[in-house]
Amino acid sequence: MTVFNSSRQVNSLCPAPALPVHEAYNVSSYTFDSLSLQRGGEFGPVTLAYETWGTLNAEGTNAILITHALTGDAHAHDVEQPDNLKVAWWNPLIGPGRTFDTSRYFVICSNVLGSCYGSTGPASLDPYTGKPYGMRFPVITIRDMVNAQRRLLEHLGIHQLAMVAGGSIGGLQALEWAVTYPDVVKDVFVVAATPALTAQAIAFSEVERQAIMADPLWQGGDYLPEQGPTTGLAIARMLAMITYQSEESMELRFARQPARRPDIASPSHTRDMGGRFDVEGYLYYQGASLAQRFDANSYLYISRAMDLYDVSEGYPSLESALSRIQGKALFMGIRSDFLFPAAQVRWLAEKCQALGGDSTYVELDSPHGHDAFLKEWGQMADAFARVF
Amino acid sequence: MTVFNSSRQVNSLCPAPALPVHEAYNVSSYTFDSLSLQRGGEFGPVTLAYETWGTLNAEGTNAILITHALTGDAHAHDVEQPDNLKVAWWNPLIGPGRTFDTSRYFVICSNVLGSCYGSTGPASLDPYTGKPYGMRFPVITIRDMVNAQRRLLEHLGIHQLAMVAGGSIGGLQALEWAVTYPDVVKDVFVVAATPALTAQAIAFSEVERQAIMADPLWQGGDYLPEQGPTTGLAIARMLAMITYQSEESMELRFARQPARRPDIASPSHTRDMGGRFDVEGYLYYQGASLAQRFDANSYLYISRAMDLYDVSEGYPSLESALSRIQGKALFMGIRSDFLFPAAQVRWLAEKCQALGGDSTYVELDSPHGHDAFLKEWGQMADAFARVF
Repeated sequence: MTVFNSSRQVNSLCPAPALPVHEAYNVSSYTFDSLSLQRGGEFGPVTLAYETWGTLNAEGTNAILITHALTGDAHAHDVEQPDNLKVAWWNPLIGPGRTFDTSRYFVICSNVLGSCYGSTGPASLDPYTGKPYGMRFPVITIRDMVNAQRRLLEHLGIHQLAMVAGGSIGGLQALEWAVTYPDVVKDVFVVAATPALTAQAIAFSEVERQAIMADPLWQGGDYLPEQGPTTGLAIARMLAMITYQSEESMELRFARQPARRPDIASPSHTRDMGGRFDVEGYLYYQGASLAQRFDANSYLYISRAMDLYDVSEGYPSLESALSRIQGKALFMGIRSDFLFPAAQVRWLAEKCQALGGDSTYVELDSPHGHDAFLKEWGQMADAFARVF
Repeated sequence: MTVFNSSRQVNSLCPAPALPVHEAYNVSSYTFDSLSLQRGGEFGPVTLAYETWGTLNAEGTNAILITHALTGDAHAHDVEQPDNLKVAWWNPLIGPGRTFDTSRYFVICSNVLGSCYGSTGPASLDPYTGKPYGMRFPVITIRDMVNAQRRLLEHLGIHQLAMVAGGSIGGLQALEWAVTYPDVVKDVFVVAATPALTAQAIAFSEVERQAIMADPLWQGGDYLPEQGPTTGLAIARMLAMITYQSEESMELRFARQPARRPDIASPSHTRDMGGRFDVEGYLYYQGASLAQRFDANSYLYISRAMDLYDVSEGYPSLESALSRIQGKALFMGIRSDFLFPAAQVRWLAEKCQALGGDSTYVELDSPHGHDAFLKEWGQMADAFARVF
């Protein structure tokens, strides 16, 4: 594997985020000088944008860290619209009396290292050049994201986490937290995440990245503001949306119906060939939406961190890594998920149990594929209540 | 649905194929003036390239038509290298004493309408302009391919087909033959094909087409010779190769191994991010290979014909279409196929049986996904021998 090795000095300049964080959100940020990266070198300065809900107790022991997925942000919950599913990605699970009970816990969600929603990522300005990092940003890993989050928690006076919880890449982070910092993390809730991606998942991921990098507007990563590779990013998102769903759910939602949205331009702005199916119009819409809101280079770096993730990296064996988990662990697979197959989540839970851990597996019975971790609120809340 | 409507006159000029057919193959071709298209209009002239093996009997009743898949050609069998799996796509099934017994049958395989291996397709020269059709080629359907094949068979003096057999898009053609021309077709062998594609399969297909059409070298379909959208076509092929395999087979073949082929350029000619997985190197290779041998516009038209296929089109119901099948039908699903799911192939077979047809379902037990129809020779031959 290629190793990023940076020996340059760091200072405490805070590069401005390239994409504006939603003005209405109560987002804070913390900047620290330097982070040691898993693949070598020091990188900094690092800013993490974050939100919190609830109050930290005097002992600093009632904190819950919520970790987000590939294109997510720190806005896991919206206090003003707590029942609106569209404004915050885990909204129904967070709040007073809810699964992540903000009347008892101090809930934190930080935008990950590498993202574009207020945290340092490839769209941030490199303080040494005054220009965005672009592809000069280092290859980062899930462990780097976790280590950056740890610095944020220390800054907030949190020495103990009651729980880390997340789905998809957020689930990888939760798992990584429990393995890397068993003395800090009490319990862990991992949804739709496995110890490492399958070859098929890596393959999909790489097709997505190729679509982005083949877009001439990508410009080797040095695209201009408002002139990024939106076509390539939209195509990548189209493919990703297929992998987040399932054959079953797409049949339920679209089947072979003609497009309800015949007006949306396709990424390539070409004419339909013999009509347009509904699923095509839907994917064009999803592609265009993401291309408007997300940074293409962030997509490359975070999706690559997902591919590179292997919980056993740096340990003698997978078993020795998993046996480090101390508290209760709830692993939730999704029946119809083909990106992070349920069988592998079950395997992970059973392996932890066999190693003496207090681990539970629950299978989320949903046709919605990987995305069920953003939809099946009842099943997630019920499983959580049974275990914790 | 948009309907292609051409009322232009046709003549008997035979446009030269844009890509040379392999010189060593014993390929013949037949050109006819005009074909009525399923979606309206007349199109022509039409040339079909074809190969035959064995001898037609005096009654013209011992012919077997073999139908090929998306990027296939007429070279289903190679007489000089009958045991070489690489030189002809259904080689082990065809020959004296084999499943398609050329000592008893006259076996024909024709390159489909829309392809680039000697038959008329978008790379062919439009006789009215002297330039390649490009995207002025009409939207074609599986039924159009079948109707063109029928013209070829009439030309060869074949009034009765002992069998039509094919897999994938070839399976769609075989099914279409049995439904559209029950008086001509005796038996049918359909592998890994369903009455219509799923929304998920259409979605993958459209991502592939968008990758091609987003390539600036595509030029609206009017690319220059040797200057086609190889990057976009390679990305499309990368995705297609994932859908032709399975999570299981990719894990068996690649898992998370580092690349055995670190030297092959990716479609976008970019650097690896944190190393290269074996599955990535493999997909780069497959992408580059197809981009060298196949016409991008043919890919668009044939894959679209696959999406648009619905065996019930033009009939009052699916049942009324399927009840037209007269002879024996062997439907073979592949356990690990997610492009044409085995459950739907089984459903098709059972539906035909319920309608009074002589239909059999056999499930090919293979980890190789959709591509098993090009690999599992023993199981295909055995099932065939049991039924026919």
